[in-house]
Amino acid sequence: MMHKKGFVRTILVEPPSLNNNTADAQRLEKCLLDELSADHIRIPLPVLKKLPLNLRSWEFKAKAVLFKDRHSWILVDLLNPVSDNPVLGTAIDIGTTRIMISLMDLETGIEIGQKGFDNPQAAIGPDVLARIHYSNKNDGLAELNSLVIDAVNLNIADMCKEHGYQKQDVYIFTGAGNTAMTHLFLGIQSIEIIKEPYIPCVNIPDTQLAKDLNLDINENGVAFLFPNIGSYFGGDLISGILFSDLDQKQDPCIMVDVGTNAEIVVGNRDWLLACAGAAGPALEGGVSKMGMTANPGVIDKVWIDPDSQELVIHTIDAKKPVGICGSGMIDLAASLFLSKRIDIRGKFSRQTCGEQLFEKEGINYFILVDKNHSAIGEPICLSQVDLNSLTSSKAAMYTILEVIVKNTAGLEFEDLEKFYVAGTFGSFINPVSAISIGILPDIPLETFEVLGNSSLGGAKQLLKNPDAFERIMKIRQSITYIELNVNQEFMNMFSGAKFYPHTDSSRFPSLQNII
Amino acid sequence: MMHKKGFVRTILVEPPSLNNNTADAQRLEKCLLDELSADHIRIPLPVLKKLPLNLRSWEFKAKAVLFKDRHSWILVDLLNPVSDNPVLGTAIDIGTTRIMISLMDLETGIEIGQKGFDNPQAAIGPDVLARIHYSNKNDGLAELNSLVIDAVNLNIADMCKEHGYQKQDVYIFTGAGNTAMTHLFLGIQSIEIIKEPYIPCVNIPDTQLAKDLNLDINENGVAFLFPNIGSYFGGDLISGILFSDLDQKQDPCIMVDVGTNAEIVVGNRDWLLACAGAAGPALEGGVSKMGMTANPGVIDKVWIDPDSQELVIHTIDAKKPVGICGSGMIDLAASLFLSKRIDIRGKFSRQTCGEQLFEKEGINYFILVDKNHSAIGEPICLSQVDLNSLTSSKAAMYTILEVIVKNTAGLEFEDLEKFYVAGTFGSFINPVSAISIGILPDIPLETFEVLGNSSLGGAKQLLKNPDAFERIMKIRQSITYIELNVNQEFMNMFSGAKFYPHTDSSRFPSLQNII
Repeated sequence: MMHKKGFVRTILVEPPSLNNNTADAQRLEKCLLDELSADHIRIPLPVLKKLPLNLRSWEFKAKAVLFKDRHSWILVDLLNPVSDNPVLGTAIDIGTTRIMISLMDLETGIEIGQKGFDNPQAAIGPDVLARIHYSNKNDGLAELNSLVIDAVNLNIADMCKEHGYQKQDVYIFTGAGNTAMTHLFLGIQSIEIIKEPYIPCVNIPDTQLAKDLNLDINENGVAFLFPNIGSYFGGDLISGILFSDLDQKQDPCIMVDVGTNAEIVVGNRDWLLACAGAAGPALEGGVSKMGMTANPGVIDKVWIDPDSQELVIHTIDAKKPVGICGSGMIDLAASLFLSKRIDIRGKFSRQTCGEQLFEKEGINYFILVDKNHSAIGEPICLSQVDLNSLTSSKAAMYTILEVIVKNTAGLEFEDLEKFYVAGTFGSFINPVSAISIGILPDIPLETFEVLGNSSLGGAKQLLKNPDAFERIMKIRQSITYIELNVNQEFMNMFSGAKFYPHTDSSRFPSLQNII
Repeated sequence: MMHKKGFVRTILVEPPSLNNNTADAQRLEKCLLDELSADHIRIPLPVLKKLPLNLRSWEFKAKAVLFKDRHSWILVDLLNPVSDNPVLGTAIDIGTTRIMISLMDLETGIEIGQKGFDNPQAAIGPDVLARIHYSNKNDGLAELNSLVIDAVNLNIADMCKEHGYQKQDVYIFTGAGNTAMTHLFLGIQSIEIIKEPYIPCVNIPDTQLAKDLNLDINENGVAFLFPNIGSYFGGDLISGILFSDLDQKQDPCIMVDVGTNAEIVVGNRDWLLACAGAAGPALEGGVSKMGMTANPGVIDKVWIDPDSQELVIHTIDAKKPVGICGSGMIDLAASLFLSKRIDIRGKFSRQTCGEQLFEKEGINYFILVDKNHSAIGEPICLSQVDLNSLTSSKAAMYTILEVIVKNTAGLEFEDLEKFYVAGTFGSFINPVSAISIGILPDIPLETFEVLGNSSLGGAKQLLKNPDAFERIMKIRQSITYIELNVNQEFMNMFSGAKFYPHTDSSRFPSLQNII
C-alpha cells in the first residue's frame, strides 16, 4: 500500500507532442509541482542526465523520491515505476552517549527495524564539552566527525543487510541531535558553542547531499539534520516537540526531556516556551558515583514491601545487582522517604535505617544490597553525598518546572493537559516515585505520558510526512527560549524544593495521608 | 572601485552578543538577505565549515561572492574582506564552430580579456546534427562533453595565466549556446532534440557547482548556462536578447542573428515574437562551395569602382585572395546587381559581364579574381549555382522577416526603432549591400546596429548585473515562438523575394534611382 502523501510518489508526466514541446525536465517539474502544490523544485544533474531515456522507456511514468529544504523541494531520484526496488529512509537520534537508528520504508511509512549503539565519540570525550575542546585541536574535528559517520554507515549497512536490503536503497537520512552533536556530525566548527556568547555555527542546516557528509547511502541520497535554537537547545528537542505534537495542541502541555540537562517545553499550537537547565548529575546514570546506565544487573526499580516494610529491588534481566540507574535512584529515594528512612531534609535517619546505615569517614552510607547478594563483591550503597546530589537535582528540576509553568507561562500545573516525559530516563521513571520525592508535580497520573526516544520519533515522523518539514520550521520560529535567571527568587524556590517533597507539602495532596 | 550592485559585496555581519545569540550562519544569512532584498539564500557546506573562524578573524566583515538560480540566491564563497585576492568570472559563448571566452573582474565589472578558439567537437562532427548522432553512441556523449570542457578549462587557465591570475580566482561561469551545445556542455542526453517532436532534455538548467560539470575554476565556483526555449531556440539567443535590451524597449525593435540558421526576435518590453528558419547555406561561410570563414586573404568586402565600374575587392589583412566570406558574398551580389551584371532574377547577364563570364558544363561562372591575382593558383569565381543558393537564402531571409514583422506582429518595417544584426556575420555585413539585394528591408541606415557576439555579450552582462537573471527568466517566459508555416502564402512571398531586390520594387525606395 502506497503511502500517498509521503516522499515517494508515482507520477505520470505528460508525454510530449509537436504541440507540447516543453523540455523533459520542465515537463517533469510541472508534474511534480502540481503533485506537491509547490512553487520550486530542484532537479539534480544526475537525474537530468538520464531523464530523456528513462522517461521514454518508462512511458512517462515514474516513481519520484522527493525531499525538501527551506528553499525548495528536491527531487532526490527518479525511479522505474514498475520495479520493486525498495525506497528506504533512515531516521537517527544522534545522542551524546547513544545513537539510535530506525530504518523505514518510505513508500509505506512502516518501520523496518531499529538499532542502537554507543556514540563512538565517547572514546574521545564522555561529554559535549570534552568533544568540542578536542574538535578544536589539529584534526580533532575530522576525527570526531569520522568516528560518528563511520559508525552510522556501518550500522546502516548492517541493518540493511539484516533486513535483506542494500544501503543503496536508502535515499533520505533525517537526524536529530543536540547542537554540538549536530555540528560534529556536519563536520563544522563548534568551539563557539561553548565560548561566551555561545554561538552555534548554524541554527538551520540545509538539506545536504548525503555523499557530501560522507554518508554511505544511495549516491543521490540527501540528509537533513534538525535545526536548533541555540547552543543549549538542539535539534533533538525540536524533533521531540514534533513527535509530541505539542505544537498542535489546543490546551497547554509540557514536555520534559531529562538527560545531563533537563530540557523543558511548555505550550500549545499558539505558543511554545522552552528552557534548559542542568538537572544535576544524579539524574543521569554514569555520572553519580553509584549510578550507571541501564545494563543487565542494574537496579532499575525499588519499592517497599507492604508487609515487611523492607526495600525490594528489581534488576534488569533479573541478574545479580551490579549498581543502580536513574529510575532506580528515584524509586529508592521515594522508598526511603515514604518509609521515613530519610527525613524531609533528605537526611538518613539512624533510627529508621538501623543496621542498614553505616558511617565511614564521617559520611553515612545506606546499604541497599549486602555483599552476599551483590554481584560486585561489595555491598551496593547509597551515600549521603549521592543522596544530597539527587536532592539538589530534584529541587532544580521542580524549580525549573515551577519557573516555566507558573512564573513564565502563568499557568498552574493542573492546567497542563499532558505531561510528556521523554528520553531514556523518562521511559523507565515511575511517576508515583517521582511525585513522591517532589521531582514531578502532583497532578493526576493519567496526565503523564512516556514518549520514549522522542528525538528519534520526530526524525521518523519527518520521513513519513513531508508536512512535518514546515512544522519543524514553525516550531523553531515559535519557541521563546527562556534563559533561567538564577536570582534570589529562584534560590528561594530552590530552597523550598530541596525538601521532601517540598516545604509546602500542600502542593502534594496525594502524599498527605502518607507523610 | 567596487561595482556596488554586482555579485561581489562587502558585508558587515552583526557581531553576536549574549542578547543576540543567533548562529553565525543565520546571522550571515540575515545580513545577505537584507543586502539583496531577497527571501532565500543557500550557504554551501564548505563555506559553513570555516564560517565561525573566518567571521571572527575578519571581525565580522567579509567579501561575499554571490550568484543565484531560479529558486534562491547562492553564497558561492565568503572571502577575507581586506585581501587583494581577485574575484573573477568567465562568460562563454559556446558556438557550434567557435567558442569565445571573456574573463571579467566581478568586483569592477571590467573585462580583463577575451579569447576565441574553435570548438574541438568539430573534429567529431561539423554540425549539431552529426554531434548529436555521435553523442547517442556508446561513450559519444562523454567524449563530446570532455572535448569541450577540456578545451574551455585549458583556455580559462591560459587566459588567467596570461593576465596574471589563477584559475582559482574564477568563481562564476556563465555560458550561452544553442540548445544542443548546451546539452553537450552539461553532459546530458540530446538525441530527442533531433527526433520528432524535438524535445530538449532541459529548458532551464539550474545553476550547478562548476566542479560537477568538471569545470576547473575555484572549487566552490558555480556555473550557469542560459536557458533555451526549445530545440531550435537556444540560450545563445536569449543571451542575445538580453544583450540587445530588446526586452526593455518601448518601441518595437528586431534582432537578427544569422548563422546556419537565421534567428529572429521582434518585440519590446511588452511582447517578444521569435522564429528561427534555415537562412540557407549561402549566408554561412564554409558551406557555400566557394564561401569560407573570415581568415587572412578572404575577400570580405566588394564594391564598384565609381569610375571604371569594375569590381574592387578587399581581403582580410590585405593578403592575396583565397576565397570569399559571407559579407563579401553579399557585397559581391549587390555589386553585381547594381552594375547590372545580374538581372532582377539573379541570373548573370552575358552582355554586362563580358569576358568575366565563362561557361563550363552548362553552368555560368563569374570570374571575380583572375588566376594571376589569386593566391590559390586558379581564379576565384562565383558560379550561377552559388548565386542561386544566395538568392534562395536572401529570399528566405526577407520572407521570414516579412512573416514575423508584418504578418505576425502586424507592423511595418518602418515601425522598428532599431534593427540589430548579431553574430559574426552581422559584424561585417554592409547594410547598404544587404538592402541592395533585398536581404534586409529598406529602412534608414541609422536604424541598423551591429551587436557583435550578442551571445557572449549577454553572458558578460549577467556577470556584471544580478538583475539580468530575472530578465533572462522573463525573456524566456515572454517569448512567443512562431513555427514558420511554409504554406502557399509563404511560398508566394518567397517567390517575390527571390527577385533583386524584390518583385515589388516600391519596397526599396532607396534603390529607385539606381535600378
